Amino acid sequence: MSALPTTNRRIVLRERPVGLLSWDHVEIEDGPMPEMGENEALVRTEMIGIDATMRSWLNAGEGYLPAVEIGEVVRASGAGRVVASNCPAYEPGDIIIGLSGLQEYFTCTDDLFSSKVAAGSDIAPLLSIYGSTGLTAYVGLIDIGQAKEGETVVVSAAGGATGSIVGQIAKLMGCRVVGIAGTDEKCRFVVDELGFDAAINHRTDDLAAKLKEHCPKRVDVYFDNVGGRVLDAVLGRIAQNGRVVLCGSISAYNETHKPPGPANYINLISRRGRMEGFIALDHWDRFPEITEVLRGWVESGEVRHVEHFFEGLESSVDALNALFTGANTGKVIIRVADPS
Amino acid sequence: MSALPTTNRRIVLRERPVGLLSWDHVEIEDGPMPEMGENEALVRTEMIGIDATMRSWLNAGEGYLPAVEIGEVVRASGAGRVVASNCPAYEPGDIIIGLSGLQEYFTCTDDLFSSKVAAGSDIAPLLSIYGSTGLTAYVGLIDIGQAKEGETVVVSAAGGATGSIVGQIAKLMGCRVVGIAGTDEKCRFVVDELGFDAAINHRTDDLAAKLKEHCPKRVDVYFDNVGGRVLDAVLGRIAQNGRVVLCGSISAYNETHKPPGPANYINLISRRGRMEGFIALDHWDRFPEITEVLRGWVESGEVRHVEHFFEGLESSVDALNALFTGANTGKVIIRVADPS
Repeated sequence: MSALPTTNRRIVLRERPVGLLSWDHVEIEDGPMPEMGENEALVRTEMIGIDATMRSWLNAGEGYLPAVEIGEVVRASGAGRVVASNCPAYEPGDIIIGLSGLQEYFTCTDDLFSSKVAAGSDIAPLLSIYGSTGLTAYVGLIDIGQAKEGETVVVSAAGGATGSIVGQIAKLMGCRVVGIAGTDEKCRFVVDELGFDAAINHRTDDLAAKLKEHCPKRVDVYFDNVGGRVLDAVLGRIAQNGRVVLCGSISAYNETHKPPGPANYINLISRRGRMEGFIALDHWDRFPEITEVLRGWVESGEVRHVEHFFEGLESSVDALNALFTGANTGKVIIRVADPS
Repeated sequence: MSALPTTNRRIVLRERPVGLLSWDHVEIEDGPMPEMGENEALVRTEMIGIDATMRSWLNAGEGYLPAVEIGEVVRASGAGRVVASNCPAYEPGDIIIGLSGLQEYFTCTDDLFSSKVAAGSDIAPLLSIYGSTGLTAYVGLIDIGQAKEGETVVVSAAGGATGSIVGQIAKLMGCRVVGIAGTDEKCRFVVDELGFDAAINHRTDDLAAKLKEHCPKRVDVYFDNVGGRVLDAVLGRIAQNGRVVLCGSISAYNETHKPPGPANYINLISRRGRMEGFIALDHWDRFPEITEVLRGWVESGEVRHVEHFFEGLESSVDALNALFTGANTGKVIIRVADPS
């Protein structure tokens, strides 16, 4: 192993963003190398997974995790190899997934937020289907959404990391699956490549008309990644005892004023529907079990995982914004360094 | 028993209302006596219960029950005594609760919608706490809302038929109970007479500030009868794993355009909350069991039921509108006739 560098390139929050993130809000800098504390390991970041929720952490105020403070490294999950260790659980060369942040090196210990994975593992899928993305898709669709064979499942941001997995699992379960995405290319992708029954382009299609056409028996489960008018339209087509799984609200994360709520929530009364939020982190105890199930589906070819790579920490702003502009298909991952 | 009249006074829908109901939309007329079919009984209406949901039945389009059609008697639940019967289950003099409609006489059979109650029963509570109102309050709070001892429960339309019972049951369960109502008089009533911990006047108080003051540990269960900005404000104060029970939406029933949805629904994601609609009718199988529980509480003096009487079918429009203008305290009941 080569000698460690003396500086650590990292992305630091300088100013709370309003709207889409830009380089006015974050800065790339050469910071000091992180210091390993007792029982900690130093990890060289190879890849970082980019989630829409990262944008919400940059806003002030209370969320399900504390806001990133001005001057702090932007929070993110990443993976890499241990280069030095004071932690008995980790040895140099071990592959670790943890809360890396957007930086070249990070320290971690053996806790809930960090874990060692099998030697020789491909890193990218660990940040997507075998990471919180896979857990989110599985728990949301099955535990929260209670999807059942023969039901109609609609998922938004269908070409994205979570949506693409949700739809494929729902197909495996024998559901009719309709994806909602923002480009014709992604609509074709989820139908032709991932096997969805139909797809709707929310930018160009008449949402209500297309939902009616593609969901003749209404919508039993809606896995919502976007909120806003798409959520409202699907609530307009919700079935008796329908379930709306609130996973995210891409349409709102960049807004300075809260967008209007879904007026069609009122259908939940007459149709005995439910709308429920969840955070995958709460279901972390089921992570090993669920990951094994997903691994079986991937290895048998029944479920595909798709990654969309960006190169280098310099791509951080573009990588995050891709989730909101719809530029990505599959999980957005920044390649920070090759294995050394 | 005196001879039957030859006409039946009744309230008929003439035109779909826009906004509050008026005599431009409904008409009082002397119709023909209803004809008893095979296996039917003829009942003389003594009291009719008035629910907010009746207003929704007057709108065109699909609901959980079909819309009342132009020319039809306005649908309502009522009670009275059998005056003639072809139905083996009913004898003259039996007290029957059924879908009477707003009229002096109605026919019914022995089915889900009609039932005979014990001779000598007081009729008014059968239309409130021992009727669908009690069932709605109990099922909504306990089955849908899953209220537990020590939790904070907020209920809107707190001085109304359902709200007043919800709050009292929640107090019995050991919850902190905060009512939201539209007049200071009703706020005083629910606190001083029904034992709520606090009340908020949604017309004059700063809702967000008062919710913060009276719900220091946030809101675990919100029993929503009104929708609109009250629902939005409570969602702004929802607790981790909070439950919103969607029972009704008084604020919307008279609107021609759907009011905006609750922007704060987004808190359901980070706080892992749930919003769920229900219709008491779906839980009809539990009616006898739940009514017995409620009867025990009423007889021990632990729960009070309150009725607000209007006199005669001529009061129909005022009686229904009272639910939307906030003129009532407790269950609105029209007295149509004395026992003969």
